[in-house]
Amino acid sequence: MEAMSGLLGGIEAGGTKFVCGVADANGTILRTVRIPTTSPAQTLRAAATFFEEATRDRPLAALSIGSFGPLSLRQEASDFGHITNTPKPEWSHVDILGYFRRIGVPLAIDTDVNAAAIGEWLFGNGRGLETFCYVTIGTGIGVGMIVGGVPHGGANHPEAGHILVPRAPRDEDFKGLCPFHRDCLEGLASGPAIQARWGADPKTLDDAHPAWMMEADYIASLCANLTYIMRPDRIILGGGVMQRPSLYALVRKALAQKLAGYDASVQRMDLGSYIAAPGAGPFAGLWGAIATSYRLVSGQWPSGWSAHDPEPDEPR
Amino acid sequence: MEAMSGLLGGIEAGGTKFVCGVADANGTILRTVRIPTTSPAQTLRAAATFFEEATRDRPLAALSIGSFGPLSLRQEASDFGHITNTPKPEWSHVDILGYFRRIGVPLAIDTDVNAAAIGEWLFGNGRGLETFCYVTIGTGIGVGMIVGGVPHGGANHPEAGHILVPRAPRDEDFKGLCPFHRDCLEGLASGPAIQARWGADPKTLDDAHPAWMMEADYIASLCANLTYIMRPDRIILGGGVMQRPSLYALVRKALAQKLAGYDASVQRMDLGSYIAAPGAGPFAGLWGAIATSYRLVSGQWPSGWSAHDPEPDEPR
Repeated sequence: MEAMSGLLGGIEAGGTKFVCGVADANGTILRTVRIPTTSPAQTLRAAATFFEEATRDRPLAALSIGSFGPLSLRQEASDFGHITNTPKPEWSHVDILGYFRRIGVPLAIDTDVNAAAIGEWLFGNGRGLETFCYVTIGTGIGVGMIVGGVPHGGANHPEAGHILVPRAPRDEDFKGLCPFHRDCLEGLASGPAIQARWGADPKTLDDAHPAWMMEADYIASLCANLTYIMRPDRIILGGGVMQRPSLYALVRKALAQKLAGYDASVQRMDLGSYIAAPGAGPFAGLWGAIATSYRLVSGQWPSGWSAHDPEPDEPR
Repeated sequence: MEAMSGLLGGIEAGGTKFVCGVADANGTILRTVRIPTTSPAQTLRAAATFFEEATRDRPLAALSIGSFGPLSLRQEASDFGHITNTPKPEWSHVDILGYFRRIGVPLAIDTDVNAAAIGEWLFGNGRGLETFCYVTIGTGIGVGMIVGGVPHGGANHPEAGHILVPRAPRDEDFKGLCPFHRDCLEGLASGPAIQARWGADPKTLDDAHPAWMMEADYIASLCANLTYIMRPDRIILGGGVMQRPSLYALVRKALAQKLAGYDASVQRMDLGSYIAAPGAGPFAGLWGAIATSYRLVSGQWPSGWSAHDPEPDEPR
């Protein structure tokens, strides 16, 4: 396959930083860069410059982006590939995909969470699974999904962090922080919501603080709804809020109560492996983007790649 | 294709009745029967007898079942094709798929709601759509889905009627009727839940009764969650509770408030077509099963079939 002599490009476009990288067809990441997310003009130019320099000796074959959003991902929409109405200053309506058309290679774009889900599928705790959910709980709540071996999207990408769930016990008064929905799941259970409800940085709340039982209740409601709607093989919970190991056990316990042994497949569930931590490391999203570039060129997902730390000397 | 000279069999297996039919490769339904759902032995024998008699002159090529559940639908499970723990007396752990192995043709099984969704996809309000949800709200609440052109299932079939949603305004006291979850969506918004809450047959409550605003709130929470998780092109609402035309407008209004114009694709939504009534008629599930048999034999979904009333003289 001639095109595969070219390099595979990937961008994990986050609200704090862009991580860009190029890899060869064996999945070896040859070079990466981390660019702070400032203004669109500055950040996108720095990313384009990285790809120009990194591909001087060997051309780029394809470039894929896993981006924060919301994004317009319907191919036939006039704003396909744009960030739409994000609360992030200056970034609303930025044509992030179109910016890279100047490179003249096949391009793809998906959500940051779908890119991370693909990374987990290749190298992490989604390996070998047909249908699973990757949830990140931090500044916001996002869900990426692989469904029947395909990254999930429909009329647009999922925004499952914004689902409506019952109030946790003893959480009647907190108004919720979502600027659109106020008390959707993200409004009640994101990191900033925990901080606003308890008046303290979540990191400073010890494991026995009632905040965590309440947080587990919300996350378990999300997991119950994902279970009944998606029927995934696993739900991977990541993000800043999940950096607290004791929270996994609380979520599993709350989820078991909420599912209440409903059907045979629920009864057979081993919640210890059904609710899992991420396993692909901090570059999951970059790996997912690079793997998407591989698929753009070859028509299939890579197999036989091995995970490696692309740039151990770069702090992240 | 030699096999296509044979007949295509379908069963819509409901808790009240089984509707069985055979069709030719053009999708013309040649014969149907309606069998009351009594004991498994009696009902399944009557269905098998129908297929024996209906295929005396022309062999059956394949048989597909759209069944009430919960079902075990994971191919590798030892109870694949069984009804699992249904509240319906005598029907728990019945091997409904296995019963028909004696016929010696390729068999398929899916949920009744996925079969109805396939019927809507062929002939109803799901025509031409890549991803849509078919919801039935009656004795229970069920959701069938087509996702990226594929009937949706994962570790098992969706049970999206059992998701957790916020209490509707002024519904703090009703306990909910779900024997597993008490106040999941089905426990709060099925036909029997409406009846229990208001102490009256829902059919007797006029359009201005507060029951309907409350019901619309629950259905809109389901639609909001399906929207953010599935991103369907449309949500089709059917079933006994939706036999009230004024309820659609209430659901659309409540859904608009809940979505709150979140992203560009939500802002572009025409709720008048996004929330739709079924359009494939009362045989949608049978059509879906027969179309599944077509796919078992040919490897693809039928195209160019036209809907027709298979047996106008049989009341249903």
